[in-house]
Amino acid sequence: MSGPPPIVTLTTDFGLQDPYVAAMKGAILSINPAASLVDVSHAIRPQAIEEAVFVTAAAWPYFPSGAVHIAVVDPSVGSRRRGLALRHAGATFVGPDNGVLSAALPDDVRTAAGRRPLGDSPASVRLPEDCRAVSLTNERYFRSPVSSTFHGRDVFGPVAAHLSLGVPLEEMGEPIRQIIAVPPFRPRRELDGSLHGRVIHIDVFGNLITDVRIDDLPSRDVVVEVAGHTIEGVDATYKPGADLRAVAGSSGYLEIAAPGGSAAALLRAELGETVLMRLR
Amino acid sequence: MSGPPPIVTLTTDFGLQDPYVAAMKGAILSINPAASLVDVSHAIRPQAIEEAVFVTAAAWPYFPSGAVHIAVVDPSVGSRRRGLALRHAGATFVGPDNGVLSAALPDDVRTAAGRRPLGDSPASVRLPEDCRAVSLTNERYFRSPVSSTFHGRDVFGPVAAHLSLGVPLEEMGEPIRQIIAVPPFRPRRELDGSLHGRVIHIDVFGNLITDVRIDDLPSRDVVVEVAGHTIEGVDATYKPGADLRAVAGSSGYLEIAAPGGSAAALLRAELGETVLMRLR
Amino acid sequence: MSGPPPIVTLTTDFGLQDPYVAAMKGAILSINPAASLVDVSHAIRPQAIEEAVFVTAAAWPYFPSGAVHIAVVDPSVGSRRRGLALRHAGATFVGPDNGVLSAALPDDVRTAAGRRPLGDSPASVRLPEDCRAVSLTNERYFRSPVSSTFHGRDVFGPVAAHLSLGVPLEEMGEPIRQIIAVPPFRPRRELDGSLHGRVIHIDVFGNLITDVRIDDLPSRDVVVEVAGHTIEGVDATYKPGADLRAVAGSSGYLEIAAPGGSAAALLRAELGETVLMRLR
Repeated sequence: MSGPPPIVTLTTDFGLQDPYVAAMKGAILSINPAASLVDVSHAIRPQAIEEAVFVTAAAWPYFPSGAVHIAVVDPSVGSRRRGLALRHAGATFVGPDNGVLSAALPDDVRTAAGRRPLGDSPASVRLPEDCRAVSLTNERYFRSPVSSTFHGRDVFGPVAAHLSLGVPLEEMGEPIRQIIAVPPFRPRRELDGSLHGRVIHIDVFGNLITDVRIDDLPSRDVVVEVAGHTIEGVDATYKPGADLRAVAGSSGYLEIAAPGGSAAALLRAELGETVLMRLR
Repeated sequence: MSGPPPIVTLTTDFGLQDPYVAAMKGAILSINPAASLVDVSHAIRPQAIEEAVFVTAAAWPYFPSGAVHIAVVDPSVGSRRRGLALRHAGATFVGPDNGVLSAALPDDVRTAAGRRPLGDSPASVRLPEDCRAVSLTNERYFRSPVSSTFHGRDVFGPVAAHLSLGVPLEEMGEPIRQIIAVPPFRPRRELDGSLHGRVIHIDVFGNLITDVRIDDLPSRDVVVEVAGHTIEGVDATYKPGADLRAVAGSSGYLEIAAPGGSAAALLRAELGETVLMRLR
Repeated sequence: MSGPPPIVTLTTDFGLQDPYVAAMKGAILSINPAASLVDVSHAIRPQAIEEAVFVTAAAWPYFPSGAVHIAVVDPSVGSRRRGLALRHAGATFVGPDNGVLSAALPDDVRTAAGRRPLGDSPASVRLPEDCRAVSLTNERYFRSPVSSTFHGRDVFGPVAAHLSLGVPLEEMGEPIRQIIAVPPFRPRRELDGSLHGRVIHIDVFGNLITDVRIDDLPSRDVVVEVAGHTIEGVDATYKPGADLRAVAGSSGYLEIAAPGGSAAALLRAELGETVLMRLR
């Protein structure tokens, strides 16, 4: 063993009270006992693929190159849906082929999956040239026997562990060029130039994270309408003591915040809530 | 230091908001800074020994041989109950002698503890020949001073850390041959051949995990009755979109699942709920 | 690489469902991939600085000398509040200069910050001679660019990672001698010798942890009054089956406990609840 321990991150909807995450970690460490395991989140709402994409997209780019990122939100486990391993931008991703690995893909590739309301089905997209992917068909790298209900432990964990040991991606199965993806989080641009966005995540502070990227705003001199409230301008910080505000969030998206309190509680806002933006 | 870092897993009812788990990890790392710490669950309901046994039983077998597994659910901390370290099947277990380490034992050994309703007191059983155990009496391997309310930090963590460094089990205290155990999770077999089981765990998806082992079913052609509903046959997967079903779960037990939803919510079922099974 | 992996602990109010903790860990591992990351708690109530101080104070002393402890509860992120790194008693602390690092300081130093009701503003105190501290001004050790809303990922995580690699503290910025602190948790001593304390933490078991240190009690032969109940004497353990009691807790504070149940639920007590103590 030389060099730093290889990193494997985990994102699931398994929660932390059940033995599922630990069984998966045990399966990984049984193959690569030196792996450095990092939890991204296990609190993805059950089977919420888009939420897993949002959360992993806001985490994986901060990990060192070479890390292996597992994402398992897998309502169709045991069906004929494929398992995937893909490598892009110096990182490796492992999980079911149901859109949950979309954070690995550039937005322009995901755009081919369409733009549809929150919760719609993902669609198939063509991978870019600089992205290698395989369908996980080589059972030699699985736990044995493979259960039909827990591929995190029996397939994705073990495959990620072997990849973290340096086994080539192509060993894991058949090369593929199409995978399932969810479209990027983006507002609709109306004919009058205004943006029709929505809330895509509500964080622990009650901040409403929207699908409007700060970089896509023509200016910060905008008027934001959400849940019957109007907010003028975009701020750089959660200024304490101030009112409801629109903030340039740390993941690059516009957020609605109630400093010192919860915007979600104040506005009684939920996932999918409409957020309108127009130039002032 | 050579070889992979030794693994120490933790199962407790300490929760994750308080400083207890971290203090325990600090105590371990102060003795073995190279230990690889893995949380199994800290969300065992307060003082629910049987739940800890179910959760650890579904996790520890997936860890590499040589791992040390701590389980601390310890309503009698500070009383005269003994502390234990035991080694069996290539793994080492550390915790109070109140039944919480039962997952270390084969079912036939645990059977001697009787079969009683959920929540009854554990009983003493004789250890099999291939299992070594000691009562933790050697204070040299404890933190000093030992508090009377937090043996996770002051006794079990430090003992596990020393064991992970390779200190022999027998150094930790007096050899013993009897420990407290909870009986295995098993349904009652009625005179007509039907099985009278119960729900022993409800997972984050709302799946009802029963005490009926798939391997013990005479056939998958059974009729399951639970909370006024009847389910025919046992499925291999959580088929999305389908109704309430009985599934062969990943831990080897029959589960009641409502694919895409929560069987617990749908059936308003709780821990201990009766599950009847008869051949079709 | 030689020696054990350097330890970095994390205490935040970020929760575990969002990507924030993972992004911070990724930023740390990108600088020091060998760091051993340990969560203290991410369930500090949003922006509850005193709670973070209580929790870290009950955890950090159990970690090996040399560990780096990050605490981020940061309502004023992006304002002109300073970032700090300080070294004391063999440990290093990193976080915003708003009182959240007070657990690093001896009580007599914190006493200069006054004694005020729960939730009041912290105040500036002079550091003792044996404590070195810097204001984090050297951007070379930050992520680039630095966001205005997430210094855990962009400032405190990276600075802690560099410190864990052995970069000298003084490299991180300008030496300082005054920092913001919260006063120590202490009851008021009345003219008649009785102690007027309060509940400073409620743990997962519903134990009420007070600001009365066991070492400060003149004797264990006291009468405790809380929420209309009277308790006689201080016990060493949570004796199962017994009534409401006062216990010498594992962090050195007096706790009110309802063995086998929750004192908080039984007494309907909340943070800040008054606890009176007088000699019997």
